[in-house]
Amino acid sequence: MAEGVTPRSEDYSRWYQDIIREAELADYGPVRGTMVIRPYGYAIWENIQKALDRRFKATGHQNAYFPMFIPYSFIEKEKEHVEGFSPELALVTIGGGKELEEPLVVRPTSETIINYMFAKWVQSYRDLPLLINQWANVVRWEMRTRPFLRTLEFLWQEGHTAHATYEEAEEEALRMIEIYRDFAENEGAVPVVVGRKSRLERFAGALHTYTMEAMMGDKKALQAGTSHNLGQNFAKAFGIQFLDENNELQYAWQTSWGVSTRFVGAVIMVHGDDQGLRLPPRLAPIQVVIVPIWRKEQERESVEQSAQRVREQLENAGIRVHLDDREEHTPGWKFNFWEMKGVPVRIEIGPRDVAKGAFVLARRDIPGKEGKTFDHPIEEAASRVQALLDEIQRNLLEQARAFRDANIHDVRTYDELREVIAAGGWARGYWAGSDDDERRVKEETGATLRCFPFEQPGEPGVCFMTGQEATEVAIFAKAY
Amino acid sequence: MAEGVTPRSEDYSRWYQDIIREAELADYGPVRGTMVIRPYGYAIWENIQKALDRRFKATGHQNAYFPMFIPYSFIEKEKEHVEGFSPELALVTIGGGKELEEPLVVRPTSETIINYMFAKWVQSYRDLPLLINQWANVVRWEMRTRPFLRTLEFLWQEGHTAHATYEEAEEEALRMIEIYRDFAENEGAVPVVVGRKSRLERFAGALHTYTMEAMMGDKKALQAGTSHNLGQNFAKAFGIQFLDENNELQYAWQTSWGVSTRFVGAVIMVHGDDQGLRLPPRLAPIQVVIVPIWRKEQERESVEQSAQRVREQLENAGIRVHLDDREEHTPGWKFNFWEMKGVPVRIEIGPRDVAKGAFVLARRDIPGKEGKTFDHPIEEAASRVQALLDEIQRNLLEQARAFRDANIHDVRTYDELREVIAAGGWARGYWAGSDDDERRVKEETGATLRCFPFEQPGEPGVCFMTGQEATEVAIFAKAY
Repeated sequence: MAEGVTPRSEDYSRWYQDIIREAELADYGPVRGTMVIRPYGYAIWENIQKALDRRFKATGHQNAYFPMFIPYSFIEKEKEHVEGFSPELALVTIGGGKELEEPLVVRPTSETIINYMFAKWVQSYRDLPLLINQWANVVRWEMRTRPFLRTLEFLWQEGHTAHATYEEAEEEALRMIEIYRDFAENEGAVPVVVGRKSRLERFAGALHTYTMEAMMGDKKALQAGTSHNLGQNFAKAFGIQFLDENNELQYAWQTSWGVSTRFVGAVIMVHGDDQGLRLPPRLAPIQVVIVPIWRKEQERESVEQSAQRVREQLENAGIRVHLDDREEHTPGWKFNFWEMKGVPVRIEIGPRDVAKGAFVLARRDIPGKEGKTFDHPIEEAASRVQALLDEIQRNLLEQARAFRDANIHDVRTYDELREVIAAGGWARGYWAGSDDDERRVKEETGATLRCFPFEQPGEPGVCFMTGQEATEVAIFAKAY
Repeated sequence: MAEGVTPRSEDYSRWYQDIIREAELADYGPVRGTMVIRPYGYAIWENIQKALDRRFKATGHQNAYFPMFIPYSFIEKEKEHVEGFSPELALVTIGGGKELEEPLVVRPTSETIINYMFAKWVQSYRDLPLLINQWANVVRWEMRTRPFLRTLEFLWQEGHTAHATYEEAEEEALRMIEIYRDFAENEGAVPVVVGRKSRLERFAGALHTYTMEAMMGDKKALQAGTSHNLGQNFAKAFGIQFLDENNELQYAWQTSWGVSTRFVGAVIMVHGDDQGLRLPPRLAPIQVVIVPIWRKEQERESVEQSAQRVREQLENAGIRVHLDDREEHTPGWKFNFWEMKGVPVRIEIGPRDVAKGAFVLARRDIPGKEGKTFDHPIEEAASRVQALLDEIQRNLLEQARAFRDANIHDVRTYDELREVIAAGGWARGYWAGSDDDERRVKEETGATLRCFPFEQPGEPGVCFMTGQEATEVAIFAKAY
C-alpha cells in the first residue's frame, strides 16, 4: 500500500484524489472548480495530443484557431443548443474598463462561432468537405467538479466539418468515433464500447451522437469521446450554403467531435492500483526509469557507468528513459516513488549485474517478484525493453478488457437491471422504452442509458422494460 | 504584381492585410479585434511551436497548464503589474446564470496565478529551479488591432521560472532571450537586435526586460519576443519562500518570457514581397510544390508518374511536399497561387523533363528565370531539394540582414535622429537621457527607445540628446 493513498476498496473517490496529488498530476486552482495541470499530468496530455493529432492529419483534417469570445446572440441561434448550454455559460460583461453592449460568452464549445465563419468560406461544392480541428480551452460553469473529469475550464480538441451530403457527414461522424476507439484502445489501453446515444443523451443540436464508453475501476462508466452528426441544424441557423454541381443552392451537412483532458482521468481510473498510477507505455511521459543500486563508494563508479550505458542505448532507440541518480533517496524509496508515478518499466543495476554485464527488468503491471526478470545483457537493452513495453501495453488493455467484460451483465427484466446497477456493474438488455421510461430508470436506479452499442446480438428481442419487441440492446450504467 | 494585392510601395498596411486575406492566413472574428487563424496560418504557428518547444525542453523546461480565470484581487497584488494591465482587462462577472461575488480576469498574462501556485509548490532549495512553460491564449482589450500583430485574444507561450539566487534568475533571463534569437534567426530567418529595454519600456513588474527587435519591410521595428528578470517582486507579492541550504527562509528570484502569434506577422513583413508571402523553409507548412505540366492527354500519364515519383522521394526524406494535380487550373495559375502562399521551392515537370528523367527547380526567393535551374535527375530529388531549401533558408536571412543593416543609421545629434526617423529607418546613438528625454523623443518623432543592444561599440561616447558622457548606445525606431 502506498503512503498517502487511500485504498481503492475503502474509498474510490478519495483514492482518485490521492493519486492525483501524490503523482503530481494536477492541483486545485484558486477559482472554485478550476484545475492546474502540473507538468507530469500535462506530459500525459501532450502524448494524447500527439496520438490524436497524427490520426486527424492522416485523415485530411487541418488545425485552425477560432476566438474564444462568442457574441451572446450566436448561442441563441440554434434552439436545442442554447437550451443545452445556457445554464453553464461564463459571460464577459466588462472589457477595457467599459460595460459591453452585448455580453460575450466564453466558449463552452465552438459550433456557433465556427459555423459563422464556415458560412463565409463555403460557397461552392468545391470548398467541401471542409475538415477543421481546433485544440483549445473551453469553459462550462459546473457545480460539482473533480480534477480531469469535470472542471470549470478544460482542454480539448473539437473537430468541425462541413459536407455536401448527409451520407458524407454520417461517414465522417462514424470515421471519427472509430479513430477515437483506435486511439483509446491502442494508445491508452482503455477498452471502450462504441455506440449511439439515445435521444435524451445526445448533443444539444445533433441528429446522432456516437460515443465511446469506458468502464472505470469502480465499474462506473465514463464517456471518453463523442462524435456528432449535426445534420443541417447549424447550417440553417448560420446560413452555410453552397452551389452544388447542378448550380443549385444547398445547405451543408455537418459533424463535430471531441476528446478532452477527461481522458487523463480515464487512464488513471482504468489502470491505477493501490500503489499508484499505472501508465500505458505509449502515453507514459517516462517509459523506463533506471535505478542504480550501490552501497560502498567503490561500487559506485562501475554501477553508474553501466546505468549510463543503458540509458544511452534506450535514448538512441527513441525510448523515453530517466536515470534516477539522486543521492538523497534510497533505492527502495525510488521504487515506491516511480511506482506511484506509474512508470511502466524499472531497470535495476547493482554490482552483481555489472559483473555480468547485465541488468534487471521490473514491470509495473505485474507487482513484486513475479514481474521481475534477470540477466538481460546490456548490449540488448533497447530490444529487450521495447519488447517489454509492447507486452505491457497489450497486457494493460487485456486486464482492463477482462475486468470490463466480467462486469457487463445481460438483463431480461427491470428487476435484474436494478440488481446489476445496485451491485455496481453495467446492465445490457433489449430496449424499446420511451423517453419517459429512460428517465424513470435514471431516477430510480441512478443509471443512464450509455449507448446502443454498434455490436449487437443480430436478432430482435424483448424489451426488458416494456415487454415489446426491441431491435437493439442498450447499455445502462452509473456514470461520471 | 499579384492580383488582389496592393504593392508594398503604395500602401504597406493594405499590402499586409491583402496578403493575409489572399494567402488565407487569417480572417476577422465576429467580435471586434478578434482573429480567426486559418489552417495555413495555423500550420506556420505549429511549426513555430515545435521549434520553440524543442528548445525549451532541451534546456530543462516542462510544460504545464494554469486556469485562465484569475481572481481580480490577484492582479492588484503587484503594484506596477496592476497599473500596466488594468486598462486592458476583460472581466467575467456572470457564471452559470449568477452574478459573481468577485469578478474574474481573463488572463492578460499569467504571472499572478502561476506565482500563487508556485508559493504552494516551492518549500526548499531542492524544489528550485522550477522551470515551467505554458502554451495558452491570452486576452488584452486593445483598441487598435491588426491581424497577428495586435489582437484582442492571441496565442503565445509564457515561461515562468523560480530560482534560488539573483544570479541564476539573470542567467535564465539571458538564456531565454538567446534561445529566442537562435529561433528567430535560424528558423524564421528573421534577423534580430537583442538588447535591454529602458525603464519606461520594460514589463510591468520586472527588474530588467530583454527583447529581440526585428525590422519589418517598411523599416518599422517589431518586438518579437521578450524575457524578464522579475527579481523578487512577485515572490514577495505572492509569498514564494524557500528554506535555503542553511535552513534560512528566502524569497525566490524569478523570470518570465514569451513569444506569441505576433511572430507570424514578423515572418510576413520581413520576407513578403508584391507577389505574396515568402516563407522560410523551416517554418513553411509546404516546403515544395510539384506542378505537373502537360497539354495532350497522351503526355499526361508519364508526367504524372514522374511527379509522383519525385513526391515519394521527397516525402521519404521528410520534406513537406504537395503535388498540385488539380485539373481545373492551368500551370500558370498554380505558379501564382503557390507564390502567393510563399512556398519556397516549386518543381515543374513536363514531357521534355520526363524524357530526360529530370525536373526543373524554381525558387521563391529569386524571382523569374534567374531562380530556375534545369535537368535535376529524379533519383537525386531529395538531396537536390534539401540543398536548395537550406540555401533559401540562408539567403532569406541574409537578404533581411542586409536590408536591416542598410537602414540602421548612427546619429550624433537629436536633429540627425529626427531626420533618420522621418525618412523611415532605425537611429542608433549614445544615450544618457532621462525618462522625460525619452518621452520627448516619442512625442516629437513617434520613435521609441527599442533597446540598448547587447552589441555595443565598446567605449563610451557622447549622448546625442544631453551632450553628457554615455556608456551605451540605444536604438530608436517607430514600432508596431
